[in-house]
Order: sequence, then structure tokens, then C-alpha cells
Amino acid sequence: MGEFTHFNEQGHAVMVDVSEKSDTVREATAMGRISMSQECFEKVKTGGMKKGDVLGTARIAGIMGAKRTSELIPLCHILNLSKVMIEFEYIESACEIEARCTAKTVGKTGVEMEALTGVQVALLTIYDMCKAVDKGMCMKNIRLLEKTGGKSGVWKAGQEKDI
Amino acid sequence: MGEFTHFNEQGHAVMVDVSEKSDTVREATAMGRISMSQECFEKVKTGGMKKGDVLGTARIAGIMGAKRTSELIPLCHILNLSKVMIEFEYIESACEIEARCTAKTVGKTGVEMEALTGVQVALLTIYDMCKAVDKGMCMKNIRLLEKTGGKSGVWKAGQEKDI
Amino acid sequence: MGEFTHFNEQGHAVMVDVSEKSDTVREATAMGRISMSQECFEKVKTGGMKKGDVLGTARIAGIMGAKRTSELIPLCHILNLSKVMIEFEYIESACEIEARCTAKTVGKTGVEMEALTGVQVALLTIYDMCKAVDKGMCMKNIRLLEKTGGKSGVWKAGQEKDI
Amino acid sequence: MGEFTHFNEQGHAVMVDVSEKSDTVREATAMGRISMSQECFEKVKTGGMKKGDVLGTARIAGIMGAKRTSELIPLCHILNLSKVMIEFEYIESACEIEARCTAKTVGKTGVEMEALTGVQVALLTIYDMCKAVDKGMCMKNIRLLEKTGGKSGVWKAGQEKDI
Amino acid sequence: MGEFTHFNEQGHAVMVDVSEKSDTVREATAMGRISMSQECFEKVKTGGMKKGDVLGTARIAGIMGAKRTSELIPLCHILNLSKVMIEFEYIESACEIEARCTAKTVGKTGVEMEALTGVQVALLTIYDMCKAVDKGMCMKNIRLLEKTGGKSGVWKAGQEKDI
Amino acid sequence: MGEFTHFNEQGHAVMVDVSEKSDTVREATAMGRISMSQECFEKVKTGGMKKGDVLGTARIAGIMGAKRTSELIPLCHILNLSKVMIEFEYIESACEIEARCTAKTVGKTGVEMEALTGVQVALLTIYDMCKAVDKGMCMKNIRLLEKTGGKSGVWKAGQEKDI
Repeated sequence: MGEFTHFNEQGHAVMVDVSEKSDTVREATAMGRISMSQECFEKVKTGGMKKGDVLGTARIAGIMGAKRTSELIPLCHILNLSKVMIEFEYIESACEIEARCTAKTVGKTGVEMEALTGVQVALLTIYDMCKAVDKGMCMKNIRLLEKTGGKSGVWKAGQEKDI
Repeated sequence: MGEFTHFNEQGHAVMVDVSEKSDTVREATAMGRISMSQECFEKVKTGGMKKGDVLGTARIAGIMGAKRTSELIPLCHILNLSKVMIEFEYIESACEIEARCTAKTVGKTGVEMEALTGVQVALLTIYDMCKAVDKGMCMKNIRLLEKTGGKSGVWKAGQEKDI
Repeated sequence: MGEFTHFNEQGHAVMVDVSEKSDTVREATAMGRISMSQECFEKVKTGGMKKGDVLGTARIAGIMGAKRTSELIPLCHILNLSKVMIEFEYIESACEIEARCTAKTVGKTGVEMEALTGVQVALLTIYDMCKAVDKGMCMKNIRLLEKTGGKSGVWKAGQEKDI
Repeated sequence: MGEFTHFNEQGHAVMVDVSEKSDTVREATAMGRISMSQECFEKVKTGGMKKGDVLGTARIAGIMGAKRTSELIPLCHILNLSKVMIEFEYIESACEIEARCTAKTVGKTGVEMEALTGVQVALLTIYDMCKAVDKGMCMKNIRLLEKTGGKSGVWKAGQEKDI
Repeated sequence: MGEFTHFNEQGHAVMVDVSEKSDTVREATAMGRISMSQECFEKVKTGGMKKGDVLGTARIAGIMGAKRTSELIPLCHILNLSKVMIEFEYIESACEIEARCTAKTVGKTGVEMEALTGVQVALLTIYDMCKAVDKGMCMKNIRLLEKTGGKSGVWKAGQEKDI
Repeated sequence: MGEFTHFNEQGHAVMVDVSEKSDTVREATAMGRISMSQECFEKVKTGGMKKGDVLGTARIAGIMGAKRTSELIPLCHILNLSKVMIEFEYIESACEIEARCTAKTVGKTGVEMEALTGVQVALLTIYDMCKAVDKGMCMKNIRLLEKTGGKSGVWKAGQEKDI
């Protein structure tokens, strides 16, 4: 682990030079959850199967959000994502919905931010679509699960150093 | 508490009609936290005071992100925000940084999503700027704290119904 | 019917002054169709019911596209849409899918362009999602059906003048 | 012709993985027409030559629209277009204007959507600039004419299979 | 003249609260120039009249740029511009082209930034279209000429205080 | 020096074909200044050191603006910038602030426009943040300083031809 790379020697923000990095396949997966009332949780599940499709809408929003990461995060490089996938899981015991986003590129920088942004926008969309039923929903445990590719290689959550 | 409002009677997603709603002052405050290693936490604090300004950058990103909420969240109405403010607090005991975003408008719909989006983009920017030091950071407890204005009036977190 | 309003007396493009216009409720509905092979048509219908949701995705895209009309059309005013709705109909006899978009605002200019843009982006999204099956799909009959509100009042397709 | 490629095996929308595809020169041409009243048609022609430049504005809008395709179409990959060209033709006999857009890239996916989006935004811009004269204009016959490059090779409209 | 208004008492950037301001007609005009070689200047003039339309393209770009001011300038409020106009003048004696942009709104904040952004994007577009002929072009004298409306009333360049 | 490259033989605007150009490292540096009253100049300097950070905000805005160049400039190609850096210098004798932006890519076209756009957006942001103190600020001397890479090689301001 090293120094912050988004500042130059004067401490000024800079979009760091990646010109010399090689184009390699890079992939990252992030996750996050949104917890809600049981009433709301049941409505999402029912809606997803019968009529109103909360998760279908959130999936599209998350994919589109991931594509716009470099517009939102100031020092993030523009990347041509070669894949974005978002999946959801109902965590029945906790009335939570888990979102996982996998982003992939062939490029010079990693796609951790794109995967995390995809998760965040998907969770925000769930909140938006359900807030008439439950304004107290809480988004949590949003983090990187794994990244591969690039010079630093594989990183997995829960393993305290780059492998 | 009622039904999902983002679907019509056929269960199709719709940006709901707010034409008849009146233009009133509406405000919302949301919060969220990012936890990190002690090493990373210290670097942010030092940087914020001495040179690299992580939180200054995250604040700008959050404000700009809040302004673009309707582009990110599919069924969110376009709003002319009349104020956006983001503040941070160092939670020393937990090596966490807390972000609070207050958004305000004079309009026909609430600004909960704008406040939450401001928090999310600010936290994502902190992650981006610190990820060279700690990829295991976790974003958590992201939720609405309070909203005022509009027909449904005041809502505060922890109070289980609209007042 | 009068003169082009998007040019000044020198013939230069201009975003025309609507400052003096009053804020009234304005609504517009547009339609369009996409024709496709029978094989493709059947796959969309089946997918829509069983698993892959082409029209659900196109609906979200169309709504989001309508919100961005003023970014795409050079001389279009920025509008805070108060409603966007997109509905689809299967035209069995012709293997066509019809999209209808209704947009609404309380503002100083009409929302014809928003309704038409919603239709176009929805149809483009259908094309994108089905092009692996049929690249020969054709978009057609895209036009305004009706507008209400504003000084010029009601206009309906097929009635050759403003009423 | 095969299956829809924008859904995974669970039927969920996904931006498909193109990481393994090779970077090749890919080009696509699309067309579309807008029909209008004779009065309107004459005004566009006169304006185009004497002062107000409807088609010049529509050309710029179409080129800029093509560049933003991936923001509008949910599952479309981001592409660095290497060329965009839009040309118009007056179809005197029918009071129609035909738009043709050619897009080109060196990349991993085709540019059919970019060419079609360029046509659509150009036609919408013509509608916007002329709607004070004729609201009954109709956009039609919008389709892909030809694509080249990539694994599937050449495709031409009117030839019922990939060559 | 007072204090910077874009910082709160802690010195943190904030999008200031304009909720209490009244909606009034506000207008601003800005100008700027680009100087170029005589060869380049002649080509622009000839092109503008005979074939390639540098200024027509720059006008469209400037209008579209003005509409996106709040996306570019971090603490700028979103405004529904009610008018944008850009005009150019050839300054023969100096081989310069002058751009003037007038922006107008009915809203809570002034439109100085929109007028200035319109000028900047128009000048940048001229540079882009001419840079194959002259890379040494220089943009200069970009400033506000006049603003009206709002509590501070009329301001004119060259008059050293608000009137 | 040659002909305008943004028009085809019919004089129509076109985003020129760069498919055949090779991917090389390309870099450009642009500069510009904003002059202001002594009162305003002192406030920026003090603020920059003590509390309100005008230049820190302008730097972030400039970097983000450079990334969006292709959305603003009609015929500009989309580029994946590999580096953006903005630095400021106080010109005490003239009460001016100078901004320099360096942009870099590995791609098929130069990054002059990105560097110039970064400067313009940074200067506009300074104007926005200081306009409560001085509306008479003037942006000036905005121009390309140097470019390297690509077929035309090195260009430096003040040297009247490509080297």
C-alpha cells in the first residue's frame, strides 16, 4: 500500500498519467445492500414477479450509471467498458436486497469505480421506486469484492493485501 | 404509507404526473459514512490540512452529482435545485468519514433523491482518491435523515411515520 | 401557420425568447412504430412475458431520453417535465410494435419534442436489443398525435390547422 | 440469425462482454426520411440556400447525437467514433428530406446504433426547426443500410442474411 | 461589492441558497474575441459565405454549451434559459472574430455564467474548426458586458459599481 | 498549413475520419489568464490559503471539463484522456491568475481542444466564484502553448510552423 496517487507533489488534484500502462483485461466486482421494511420488501418481490419491475429498472439504471462514472468522479479516467452486469439477490432473513455489479474493460486503468458506481446507482434507483412505501430504507455494506488485471493483479476483499 | 407510485395500473414504469402539485419549498438531508483503515484515515486528515484535499474534491463532486440526479435515476423528475451543501465529519473512534448533504428546491417534488445522490457521489469520490492506500473501504449507513415541504410534510428518520 | 421561429431576421439560428410566455400546463403525445421479421416479433413477445424484457428496457430508455431532449436538439428549451409515460402495443397483423409517449410540463414552451424524442429513443432501444436477430428492422410513422396547452391551444394529427 | 444477446441466461439485461473481440475497422450507414407539407419543404430549401440553415443545424445535431449514443441506449457500449458524416437529400417528388449517417470506429463492436441515432437526432432537429410551419411532419423509413467489419462481416439492407 | 458567496462560514464550497429569491426576468450579455492569421481569417470569411460554415457551427455549439453551464461550473444553479442568442462580427482591422452571447431566464439567479459559457464554447469551436490552418489563434477579452434583473439590478462593463 | 479539415468537398461539416491514424502518445498544453481587481485578487489568494478554496474548485472543474470536450465541441472526436493536469500561478504585478492545462492521450487525434477546454472551464469557474466581488473580470490570452505526438509532430507557440 502506498501513497495517494490523485495528487501531485504540490498536493494538487490531478488525473494521473496512465499513458505508459499497458492495455490489459481488467475486471472488478462490487456489492452493496439496501435494507427496508418487511412491507416494502414484500412489495418489491411481488412486483418483480407480477407487475411493477423495481429490480429490472434498477438494473438498467445501474448499467447506465456505470457507463457515466468518469463524468461523476472527478479524477476518474474515461474507460470504454467492455461489459457491465448487475445482479440482485433477495436476503429474506434481513429484508435486504443485495446488488452486485461486475464491470470489465480492456484498458489502462482498473474498473473498481465503475463497479461501485453501478451498485450505488442501482441502490439509489431501488430507493427512488420504493420511497412512497418506506423512506427509512438504508444502503449499506457497499464495497469492492474483487478486482483482477493490471500491474497490481488480483485483489479480493478480506485479504488484507494485494496478491 | 401507500403504494409504489412509479408504476401505472398496468405495472409499467412511469414518471408520475406532478403537474397539479404546487411549487413549495422542499428540503432534504441525507447522510452516509465510509470506513477505512487507520493508515488511510490519518492520511486523509493530514492531507486535508496540509496538501492533498480529499474532502474538498469530494464536496465538489457531490454537489455536481446532486445536480445530475435526474439523469441517473430513471423516474426522477428534473429539478432546479436552489441549494446544495455537503459537509464532512471525521468519526475518530471508528476511522470513518461521515458525509451529509442538504438539497433544497422550490418545486413540485421532493429532493430526497438529490440529497442521497450527493452523499453517494461524495463517498465514491473519497473511495476513488484513497483506493491506492486502502481498497477495502466500505460505504455504509446511507439514508435519508429528514425531509420537509410538500403535501406529506415533515419526515424524520427514526420516526416511523409521516408527521 | 407561420414562419420558422428558430431563426432571427439575419437568418441565424437562435433559441427563441419565451420569457414573456406564461407558465401553463402543456402536454403532447407522439407515436412511432418499428417493423420486424415474424421470428423477431415472436421473440420479443415471448421474452416480454417469460424472461428478457425488451419493452421494459425500451420504456426506461425512452423516459430517460425524453428528459434529455434539450441536450440533443440544439434550439430546444430546457423543460422540467412533470410527467413522461411510454406505452407499447403489439400490432400482430404487421409484426410491428407501436410506441406512444406522452410528456407533460407546466412551463413556457410545448413538449412536442420531448414526446417525439421519447418515442425515438424507445424505438432505437428495441432495435439495439433485437438486432442480433433482425438487422433489417424499420422505424416508421413517427409523428406527433396531439398537443394541448399554450397560446396555440389544441393540435391533433389529421386536422390540418390549429384549433 | 440467433438469439437476443442483451440478456443473460436468467433473462436479465446485461451489457454483453466484448473483451475478447478484436479491434477492427467497423462502419455502418443508416438512413431515414421526414415528410412535410409542400409549403414547409419549400421554406427549408429556400432557407438552406438563402439564410436560415435548417439542414446545417440538423447535421451538427446529428453528429453530436451519434457521439452520445451510449448514453441514450442502455446496453450500448461506449465507442470512440473515428468518423461521423451526415448528408441530406431533397426528395422533390414526395416533399421529403432524406438523411444518411455514416459512422465508423476502430473497436470491438459495431456502430449500427450510432448511425441510426445520428439519423434520428438529425430528423428530430428538422422537426423542431420546422414545427412552427408544419406540426404534421412524419419521420419514416429509418433503418440500417449497410454495415461492415467485425466477425459477422458485411450486411446490406435487402439481402436477407449476413454475407 | 461584498464577499465571495460560494463559501459558507467554514470556507467550504456550497451552492448557495436562492430559495427566497424571486423569479424575475434576468438577462446577461458577454463577449469575447479570437485572433488569427490573415490567411485563416480570410478562409473563415470565404467559407462562411461560400461553403464551409465555421460560424454557423460555432453558433450552434455556443447555444448548446450555454444550456449545459450548470454541468460544467460546479456551484452554478440549474436554470431554464428562456433565450440564447449568439452573434459574430468580423473585426477586419485586427483579423479577429468577436462573439457576443445573450442569455435570458425567468428565475432566481442571474445568467452571467451562461452568457460567458456560450461565448467560450463558440470561440473554442472556431478554434477547433480552424486549427488545421492556424494553431496559434488566441482567445481574448472574454468578459461580461451587461446584466439586468434581480436584486442587484443593472450592471454594465466599464461602470465600476452596481447601479 | 493547409485547408480546413472539418468540411468535406461539399463544404459540409463532418467529423473527419481518423481510422487510419495510428495510436500514438499525444500531449498538449494550453494557457489562459483572468484579470481582476486588486481587492478580488487578494481575496482569492487569502482564501486559497486560509479557507475558501477558489483555485482548488477551479482545478477540479477544469479537469472534469476537459473530459467532456467531445460533448461540447461538435466535430471533436471522443478521446480517452490518459492524463489531465491544471496548475495556476498568481501574476502579482497584473492582478491576474494564469491557468495551464496539460492533457495527454494514447490515441488517433491530438488533445489541443481538451487542453484549451480545461483552461476555459477553470477560468469560468474562477469567474463564477469571484463574481460577487468583481463582475468586471476579463479572460485573456487563452491559447495553445505546445503539442507533441501524431504525424504533425511538435508545435510550439511562437514558432510559426510545425517542426
